[in-house]
Amino acid sequence: MISVTDQARQYARDHQQQFMQELFEMLRIPSLSADPAHASDIQRMAEWLRDHLTAIGATNVQIIETAGLPVVYGEYMGAGPDAPTVLIYSHYDVVPASLEDGWDTDPFEPVLRDGRLYARGVADDKGQMFTHFKALEAYLKTAGSAPVNIKFFADGEEEIASPHFADILRENLELLRADLCLISDTSMPSIDEPMILHSLRGMTYFEIHVDGPSADLHSGTWGGTVHNPALALAEIISKLHNPDHSIAVPGFYDDVVPLTDAERAMLEMTAISDETAKAMTGMPAVWGEAAYTIRERVSARPTMEVHGLGSGWTGPGPKTVLPAKAMAKLSCRLVGNQNPKDIFDRIKAYIESIAPPTVSVRVELLTSGDPALISHELPELQAAVRAYEKGWGATPIFVRGGGSIPAVAELYNQMKIPVVMMGYCLDDDGFHGPNEGMSVEMIQRGIETTIVYFDEVARSHS
Amino acid sequence: MISVTDQARQYARDHQQQFMQELFEMLRIPSLSADPAHASDIQRMAEWLRDHLTAIGATNVQIIETAGLPVVYGEYMGAGPDAPTVLIYSHYDVVPASLEDGWDTDPFEPVLRDGRLYARGVADDKGQMFTHFKALEAYLKTAGSAPVNIKFFADGEEEIASPHFADILRENLELLRADLCLISDTSMPSIDEPMILHSLRGMTYFEIHVDGPSADLHSGTWGGTVHNPALALAEIISKLHNPDHSIAVPGFYDDVVPLTDAERAMLEMTAISDETAKAMTGMPAVWGEAAYTIRERVSARPTMEVHGLGSGWTGPGPKTVLPAKAMAKLSCRLVGNQNPKDIFDRIKAYIESIAPPTVSVRVELLTSGDPALISHELPELQAAVRAYEKGWGATPIFVRGGGSIPAVAELYNQMKIPVVMMGYCLDDDGFHGPNEGMSVEMIQRGIETTIVYFDEVARSHS
Repeated sequence: MISVTDQARQYARDHQQQFMQELFEMLRIPSLSADPAHASDIQRMAEWLRDHLTAIGATNVQIIETAGLPVVYGEYMGAGPDAPTVLIYSHYDVVPASLEDGWDTDPFEPVLRDGRLYARGVADDKGQMFTHFKALEAYLKTAGSAPVNIKFFADGEEEIASPHFADILRENLELLRADLCLISDTSMPSIDEPMILHSLRGMTYFEIHVDGPSADLHSGTWGGTVHNPALALAEIISKLHNPDHSIAVPGFYDDVVPLTDAERAMLEMTAISDETAKAMTGMPAVWGEAAYTIRERVSARPTMEVHGLGSGWTGPGPKTVLPAKAMAKLSCRLVGNQNPKDIFDRIKAYIESIAPPTVSVRVELLTSGDPALISHELPELQAAVRAYEKGWGATPIFVRGGGSIPAVAELYNQMKIPVVMMGYCLDDDGFHGPNEGMSVEMIQRGIETTIVYFDEVARSHS
Repeated sequence: MISVTDQARQYARDHQQQFMQELFEMLRIPSLSADPAHASDIQRMAEWLRDHLTAIGATNVQIIETAGLPVVYGEYMGAGPDAPTVLIYSHYDVVPASLEDGWDTDPFEPVLRDGRLYARGVADDKGQMFTHFKALEAYLKTAGSAPVNIKFFADGEEEIASPHFADILRENLELLRADLCLISDTSMPSIDEPMILHSLRGMTYFEIHVDGPSADLHSGTWGGTVHNPALALAEIISKLHNPDHSIAVPGFYDDVVPLTDAERAMLEMTAISDETAKAMTGMPAVWGEAAYTIRERVSARPTMEVHGLGSGWTGPGPKTVLPAKAMAKLSCRLVGNQNPKDIFDRIKAYIESIAPPTVSVRVELLTSGDPALISHELPELQAAVRAYEKGWGATPIFVRGGGSIPAVAELYNQMKIPVVMMGYCLDDDGFHGPNEGMSVEMIQRGIETTIVYFDEVARSHS
C-alpha cells in the first residue's frame, strides 16, 4: 500500500505545471519592502497570499497589520491537540532589482529557461515559502489531513531586517504558539549537498553622512580650500579596516566567542577553496582575514561591508561640481556573542573619533538583529536530517550560516522553541543579485522534503 | 552733446524690461551639454541664438555643426577694415540642475526676486553672453554703427571642457580671425571690486572604475572574502592626497612654475580670510595646503577634487548588496606649466601602482584643457581697465582665475591674440550650484562696460 507521504509527493509531482503558474503570479508582484513607492505592491502581495492560503485549505487566514508592513497568517490545526505544531516563518518581501543591474530579463516577469525559473525573489524567499504551502496542499488533497498542525507566518519586512518582528511576536504569542519553527530561506553548494543551518549571523546596518559646504560649489572656485565631502568619506571608509583586513573599530571583536578546534573541523567539511570562490564570484583574487578560512569568514566571523556610495554627479560627462555632501551605507554581520546595539555604538564612536573637523559627520543606525546559535542535537533538527535523506535524496550536514534572519534570534529567544533552517536553494541562485533563479527540480525536492519533514516531526513527537 | 557711448548706454537703461524678457526666454531652455537626453534643447538653444543675433542686426549668422554640439556664430563688420575686430567667446550650455539639489525654485523657470534673476546658467554664462549682444544692439539702435567689428562665437560644449574647440578653431580660423578676444565668464568678490582675469587654470578630468565580482553579491554569503569595490575605491581615493593635503601623485608638481614674491603680493590684494571662506561656503573649517593662502590655493595652485561617487544601493532602506563595481569622477585644476595629458598619465600610473590585485581598476580620461597666462600689460587689457572705470564705476584689479575655460588656451595659442576676461558676476552667484543668480544691476553694468570697452578698444587701436 502506498504511504500517505508518497501519495502527497505524487500529487505534488502531478501538479507541477499548476504550481508553476501560481508561483509565477506571486513573482510578478514587485513586493519591495525597502522602497515606500512599492507600498501598494506590498498590499497586493499580502492579499494574494491571503487568498492563496485560503484556497489551499488554511483557516483563520488574516492579514495582520503592524507598525510597519503587514504579516500574512494562516493555519492548519486539523492534526489535533496531541500532534506537534510547526510554525513556518517565511517572507514575501524582496530586495530591489532592475534590468540595469545586469538582469537578462525583467526581474518581475518570471521566465522558465533550461529548467530554471528566473525572477527577483524566486529563491529569496518566495519559491521556498511556496514549497511549504504546496506540502500542506498535497496532504489535504490526498489524505485529507496533515500529520502536524501548521501555522504560516509570512513576514513583509525581512529584507529591511524585520524592525517590527520582535513586537509582532510579543503581541501575537498565543496565536503563534508552536513546538518548533521551520524556515526555508537558506542555500546549499550543490543539489546533492543539502545543509541545515544551526547558526545565523546578526547584523547592524548603518549610514555615514558627511556634510561639507552648505551647497554644491564650483570646483574651480573653491577646490583646494574645502574638504571635499566625497574625499572625507573615502578617508573615513579607508580607516574602517586594518591592513590585515580585520575591522579597525576598537573592541569590535571583544565579545566574539572563539571557534573551537571541533567547530573549525566541522566547518572544514564544507571548505571553499580560493579557486571555487573566484569561480563563483568572478573576483580577481580572494580578500579577507588570512587567519581564517573562506568558510569561516563567511559564516563564523563578523564582517563589515559597504553597500552603497553616493555623492555628487555620477551621470554622463564631466560636471565639475564640488559636492556639498556624501553618504555611504554599510553593515556588519555579527556572530555570537556580539550585541548589535553595542557594536553600533562602538562603530559610531570610532567614526566620530576619526572624523576631521573640516566636515560634519553623522552615523545613523538603520536596523539591527541578534545572531543565533542552535544545538544540532535537538530531535527537531535530527528529524530534518531524515527528511532530507528520504525527501531530497541526500544526507545534509549542519553548517553555520553567513546571512542574517533577524527573526530567528527573536523566535528562539521569545518562544523558546527550536528553529530549524532547511534551505532549498543553491548558493549561487543569486540572492539579492541579478538573474536570481531557482530550478524546478529544487522546488519539487523542497516540496517533497517538507512533506516528509512534517511526517518525521509527527513521528519524533509521539 | 551726448557721446555715442552715452547714447548707447541710455538705450540699454531704457530697454531693461525688454532685455529681461529676452533673457528669460534664453534661460528657460535647459541646454545641458553633459546629458545626451538634452540634445533637442541644445538644438533649440542654438536656434534661439541664431534668431536673436539676426534680430539685433548681426550678419552672416549661422549654426556651425561640429563633431560635437553646434557653435552659434554671427558678426558685425560695419566698423570697416581699419577698425579692430573683437572675437567674443561665450557659451550657451549649462550644467545640470534640479530642485533636489537645493533650488528654491525651478532652475529652468527664471524668477526675478529682490533685483536678482535666479535660473541655471544666468551667471554661467547666458547672462554674461547676453551683455555683449545688448551692447551691439544699443550701438546699432542709436548711432546705427559700432566702433569695432564683432564676431560672436557661442560654444555649446564649454561645460564639458570644449572637447572639439581646438578643431573648430583650426577649421574656422579665417572666419574667426580677430585682433583680440573678449570673454565674460568670470566673477568678482563684490560689485565694487571688478576683476580682469589674466590667468586660467587647465584641467584633466577622469574617472576611476573599480570592478570586483562579476555581479552583485549577497553580503551575508560572500562578505569578508571579496574585496568590496566600494571599499577598494575609498582606499584608492584616500591615497590621492598626502596628510598635508598636497596631491600624492609622484611628479604632479614638477612643472608648476613657482609663485614669485611679486605675484604673491598681487594675489594678497584679493586675500580671502578663513572667516570669509567659511561664511561664503558654509564649510565648518578651512582645508588645504597650509603653505599657501586661500587665494593662492584657488587660483595659482593645482588641485584635485572628487566630483562624484557611485556604487551599490543608495536608495531608502537597508539593502545588503555587496556591489560588483564602484566609480568616481575626479578632476585636477592645473597651472602653468603643467601639461594636462602628462598629468593624466602620471595620475593613471600612480592609481594603477596602488591598485590592489583583489579588484580590477581602470582610470579613464574624460577631457582636458591647457592652463593659460596672459600679460596684463597688453593694451587690450589696459583698455579693459578703463572700460570698468567708466562703464562699471570702479577700478578693476588683475587676478589669476581658479576655473578653467579650455578655449582660452587654444585661442591664445592658435590665434596669437590677447584674450581679455572681463567678468560681470559675483563670486557667490552660484556657478554650478543651486540658486544660481545674477542681479539686474550687474547685468546692466555689464552691458554698459561692454559698450565702453568697444569704444576704448577702437581708440587704443587707432
